[in-house]
Amino acid sequence: MDIGELRQMLDRTGQAHVLNFWDELDSEQQRELQAELQALNVEELNVVFRKAMDSFQQAARHEKVDARMEPVPRQVLGSATRDQDQLQAWESEGLLQISQNKVAVLLLAGGQGTRLGVSYPKGMYDVGLLSRKSLFQVQAERILRLQQMAEQRHGGTCTIPWYIMTSGRTMEATRAFFTKHGFFGLRQDDVVFFQQGMLPALSFDGKVILEGKGKVAMAPDGNGGLYRALATHCIVADMERRGVSLVHVYCVDNILVKVADPRFIGFCVQKGADCGAKVVEKTNPTEPVGVVCRVDGVYQVVEYSEISLATAQRRSPDGRLLFNAGNIANHFFTVAFLRDVVEVFESQLQHHVAQKKIPYVDPQGQLVQPDKANGIKMEKFVFDIFRFAKNFVVFEVLREDEFSPLKNADSQDGKDNPTTARHALMSLHHCWVLTAGGHFIDENGSRLPAIPRLKDASDSLIQCEVSPLVSYAGEGLEGLVAGKEFHAPLIIDENGVHELVSNGL
Amino acid sequence: MDIGELRQMLDRTGQAHVLNFWDELDSEQQRELQAELQALNVEELNVVFRKAMDSFQQAARHEKVDARMEPVPRQVLGSATRDQDQLQAWESEGLLQISQNKVAVLLLAGGQGTRLGVSYPKGMYDVGLLSRKSLFQVQAERILRLQQMAEQRHGGTCTIPWYIMTSGRTMEATRAFFTKHGFFGLRQDDVVFFQQGMLPALSFDGKVILEGKGKVAMAPDGNGGLYRALATHCIVADMERRGVSLVHVYCVDNILVKVADPRFIGFCVQKGADCGAKVVEKTNPTEPVGVVCRVDGVYQVVEYSEISLATAQRRSPDGRLLFNAGNIANHFFTVAFLRDVVEVFESQLQHHVAQKKIPYVDPQGQLVQPDKANGIKMEKFVFDIFRFAKNFVVFEVLREDEFSPLKNADSQDGKDNPTTARHALMSLHHCWVLTAGGHFIDENGSRLPAIPRLKDASDSLIQCEVSPLVSYAGEGLEGLVAGKEFHAPLIIDENGVHELVSNGL
Repeated sequence: MDIGELRQMLDRTGQAHVLNFWDELDSEQQRELQAELQALNVEELNVVFRKAMDSFQQAARHEKVDARMEPVPRQVLGSATRDQDQLQAWESEGLLQISQNKVAVLLLAGGQGTRLGVSYPKGMYDVGLLSRKSLFQVQAERILRLQQMAEQRHGGTCTIPWYIMTSGRTMEATRAFFTKHGFFGLRQDDVVFFQQGMLPALSFDGKVILEGKGKVAMAPDGNGGLYRALATHCIVADMERRGVSLVHVYCVDNILVKVADPRFIGFCVQKGADCGAKVVEKTNPTEPVGVVCRVDGVYQVVEYSEISLATAQRRSPDGRLLFNAGNIANHFFTVAFLRDVVEVFESQLQHHVAQKKIPYVDPQGQLVQPDKANGIKMEKFVFDIFRFAKNFVVFEVLREDEFSPLKNADSQDGKDNPTTARHALMSLHHCWVLTAGGHFIDENGSRLPAIPRLKDASDSLIQCEVSPLVSYAGEGLEGLVAGKEFHAPLIIDENGVHELVSNGL
Repeated sequence: MDIGELRQMLDRTGQAHVLNFWDELDSEQQRELQAELQALNVEELNVVFRKAMDSFQQAARHEKVDARMEPVPRQVLGSATRDQDQLQAWESEGLLQISQNKVAVLLLAGGQGTRLGVSYPKGMYDVGLLSRKSLFQVQAERILRLQQMAEQRHGGTCTIPWYIMTSGRTMEATRAFFTKHGFFGLRQDDVVFFQQGMLPALSFDGKVILEGKGKVAMAPDGNGGLYRALATHCIVADMERRGVSLVHVYCVDNILVKVADPRFIGFCVQKGADCGAKVVEKTNPTEPVGVVCRVDGVYQVVEYSEISLATAQRRSPDGRLLFNAGNIANHFFTVAFLRDVVEVFESQLQHHVAQKKIPYVDPQGQLVQPDKANGIKMEKFVFDIFRFAKNFVVFEVLREDEFSPLKNADSQDGKDNPTTARHALMSLHHCWVLTAGGHFIDENGSRLPAIPRLKDASDSLIQCEVSPLVSYAGEGLEGLVAGKEFHAPLIIDENGVHELVSNGL
């Protein structure tokens, strides 16, 4: 398409304004903009915009889903607290599947650490663990350990392939980071990067927004862009080629994530599920977390912004919130289900509209930072496919064991930041050591109470970190710590148990 | 006692070192030290020390209470979530008692804001509410509103006397603050200040610690010092004189505290209780909160440091923590029970030992700031009297409605600080407005979702504050807000509903 044809097409589709500054661009900039615009399917974009806005405006007209919601019934629910007698069996099932090379993990890592205040992919972030490991490294080492556990249990060798979805913004840095760190000990062939799509940001009347005179404001198409990306990059075929039939999908930002959690996988397999969601109990009505529930009999995640306060506050007779299955973006899919999604259902998925403040170039060519929302980004969500599942299940786990997302920079508000992530991991690992029979002692040699006395300002969190290469979920520590006393900070890794002598810094 | 007799007594009791610097003091300092030492009952102090250390060392020898603990049985438990059908009846009962002048509140305010980083009493702290009200003012206005509610319901006028226990460190500033603010609209006669006792800090071998050459290191004797102070200052008699028979005791630092909560009082009254504790559900095993339970059949609060992790992690078949009745220092006592405590049981209460870093004057007269614990403070706890109750009950409420303590200064760790307190109150009041039918809109005029989108960095908490003079617990707002749309920040007070126009600051 030459520039004349492109201009005609843009005229026809109502987007001609994107060439307003064409004559001011140098030839390199012109070439880049032309390539960018040709890659956009502008006709389809206009259709997508109208559909997305229609459904957004419907929602805004207060057609709330509240009245049509039902909670997850007990029979499809597995619980780490209420089904303790079955956890062992589920774990065995999961390890068996892993040992047979049937399990893969799929990481959603398309977002940048913008809210975290960094310009590189979140997975590269170091929250300040004693080991200074990045989120990527922690997850890689959990995969390694799980493979080892499955091999020890069932003999032979096995592999958990790791599919990593990046975006145009994170691909290069992510690849380089993995290469620099030797894939953290994984086989390079078993780490598969692929890239999700991007969509332009649009004004409220559907015009493509320019973020520079020669540059369209592009954004990743949401974590639900996964399904189109799976198709584009033939990922499902790759899974099938490897003999993988079960996939654990998760987000990069959860420092406690149990990748390929054998309990979760075993539960889903034993329930014969094609699709499953791991959840934590929502305990406060106004906590901003989506809840897994049924709407008109179909499973979905209802976002907190879609329901009224009264619905969020409803309670069961046992006093718990009625809608308490808090989504933590940890999902199970069979590969067969993913193939159906990619081939059949993906095209039925609707984009969601997020109103945003989007920096734009005004008609005079000045870059403007708006102080209120001036446009939209369109996204799909990874859980949008729940409604196509034939046998959907839910697995409830403990927040303190499995969920501490890294979203924000450290600040006084203190939610979901590097400090909370670091504390969550160290607190969990401290518990593992205690449960395995170890003790921590203070500078006078007195044993510290099991529960850190954070109440008292003179006390602080016990710093304790167990390498995933040593323990995936607390197992295997007895031989190292039982009956022993330790000073914090303590690291347990593949080289042994190390008390880090504080040098007064 | 002249200085010779004093010296003899101190020699006899092994505390003669406190006069080591006597000759270096000027006559004013000598007079002050002499007075201070004469006020101490050193013989009794030595006995108290030995008893407290004995029981502390017993505990340290791992004679854990774990095996002897039982949870609160359902029949003594009232629950804001599980007994919703009875809340109305309990509230009516409570308001009736209040209208008959039978209810008093008693505030434990002996602590300074040391961990908060201020040198004045915590109740004077301004956490940054829109109104800039102090904790004391918020509590005072809740009392005023409750009196009004009881009067509206039952006619006549009524009074809820407010007993405020200060310590030597906070008395003067507290009184001055109340005077300066005209007792926040309360009758001065209905606010009764009294002072708790102090005890010296001791070294591990029981020697009185000097914090200056002429000054003993004194500390308040714990919130359980209440009972001795009640006796010393004839407070129970004052209650009886006023016809008060029911008392709500609470700590100053909880910004959400429902002083004289009619539901709690009504529940206790209808259960025929002489003693009750308000609790919130403990949901994380390692949360540093004491739990109400029975030990050897007797009710008490077991502190987190007294039990093993395994006990803290035990769960009921319903998945909840077995020991989940988290103590929030909100207690109900009948005056008859308090009289028994003061006259009979108080002398049986044991002091608890807290190891602390206590600045001290060394033999050369230099002030030393120790970097590890070098001594103890001895304290009683307000809940130590539960075991003497004949009919003990527990009332479980929602944390987000009733408990947000102010303990620490703002920091990145972000627990129990001014920011969390302010957010807790504004979030609750935001819910009140929504429940009463009001709506918040953004700068484009769109209605904001019920649950603030804190997920998104561009959003922030909706600032909303309702004066306690207008609403005690969310009641009475419909006429002011139903069907209306507001921009935050919003204040609702006795002068009406005010949108605070942000001027870009």
